[in-house]
Amino acid sequence: MSGTTEPFVPTARTKVKRAHERGHYDRETVYAILDAGLMCHVGYVIDGQPYVTPTAYWREGDRVYWHGSSASKMLRHVKQGPPVCFTVALMDGLVLARSGFHTSVNYRSVMAMGQAEMIEDPADKLAKLEAMLERIVPGRWPELRAPTAQEVKATTVVSLKLEEVVAKVRSGGPIDDDEDMDLDVWAGVVPTPTTIGAALDDPALKAGVAQPANLAKIRIG
Amino acid sequence: MSGTTEPFVPTARTKVKRAHERGHYDRETVYAILDAGLMCHVGYVIDGQPYVTPTAYWREGDRVYWHGSSASKMLRHVKQGPPVCFTVALMDGLVLARSGFHTSVNYRSVMAMGQAEMIEDPADKLAKLEAMLERIVPGRWPELRAPTAQEVKATTVVSLKLEEVVAKVRSGGPIDDDEDMDLDVWAGVVPTPTTIGAALDDPALKAGVAQPANLAKIRIG
Repeated sequence: MSGTTEPFVPTARTKVKRAHERGHYDRETVYAILDAGLMCHVGYVIDGQPYVTPTAYWREGDRVYWHGSSASKMLRHVKQGPPVCFTVALMDGLVLARSGFHTSVNYRSVMAMGQAEMIEDPADKLAKLEAMLERIVPGRWPELRAPTAQEVKATTVVSLKLEEVVAKVRSGGPIDDDEDMDLDVWAGVVPTPTTIGAALDDPALKAGVAQPANLAKIRIG
Repeated sequence: MSGTTEPFVPTARTKVKRAHERGHYDRETVYAILDAGLMCHVGYVIDGQPYVTPTAYWREGDRVYWHGSSASKMLRHVKQGPPVCFTVALMDGLVLARSGFHTSVNYRSVMAMGQAEMIEDPADKLAKLEAMLERIVPGRWPELRAPTAQEVKATTVVSLKLEEVVAKVRSGGPIDDDEDMDLDVWAGVVPTPTTIGAALDDPALKAGVAQPANLAKIRIG
């Protein structure tokens, strides 16, 4: 874990110009958003065409990680170190204003730019995969059948150091024009949280195996 | 509304190679995913750097639309017609297998590639903005203060014709190795639905204005 607490430095690419009050560069805000999400969107370019691939990710210290099959087109490309854009966006609610123009969405997002690096060492890779599962269900990793060397080999893990980063946050109620405040129009926020539903047993679950208590530790959103 | 029901034709860029059973090219699947989501991620390239910008979108017929301030960096760029990648991903659940290797995520996603086009005509633009609000809260548009010409001018709306498109879907329970099925490990799915919470009144809401019945028509996820 890297311990720096210095804020990120805005660059020409990450400086929020419009609605600049929504831009945040402090690590506390950035890390809190990254730790709340589970799915990122990775942007990369092949032959001039941008691709945006959704995938699961996790954060450790000043790095984010994602993984997948070593045969993945996205991973085979990004592990070579081209410029990538890593974006996480969490939708928090619909902001229903008194006019269409001021209707909005509450969200928390992080955009990070840089070059991904591949985790080569098998032991290091295994530790990262454990960290990923720990992020999904804390405490589940030791309960599972241990990974085989072949499984580790078939998995590519990449990481992106968080250096050129911006968070954007919109929260709160509608901001209407003063002259609209007396209209007979309802205004407010409709929350749209990601929720954790009741776990569904695998139909082929071995008889007598109960749902583990650690399922209650899952946090997303 | 364009009425074609022909499936999309896989290209070298959209053909699903690994886990090909997850790939879908029929319009019914693609449109159902697009109509369930509200936030997309738009990928574009400036000076060789990919950008991935989350934003709200909607679908009409064989096109998707998104909008924003005419001063938006993303919109000022994509309205010029460079190659873009439009991705929607809905996370449906955590697939908790008996090994880390087979642990997965249930999701529905659509990726579309092409060149966006700007909606220039103010009347057309206004109709599109109405369609957007209709997607968010059906029936709310006529209740609102009407847009001004200046607001329409300050808003850029772009559309992407759905031509080079692929949907990917993973659903159902874990698929474990045969030799792991007798382990004393719980396995199953933990749903992670996006939900619609109870509406919160704007603290500045005019006295006597009630929550409209159409809030119950909001559908996301």
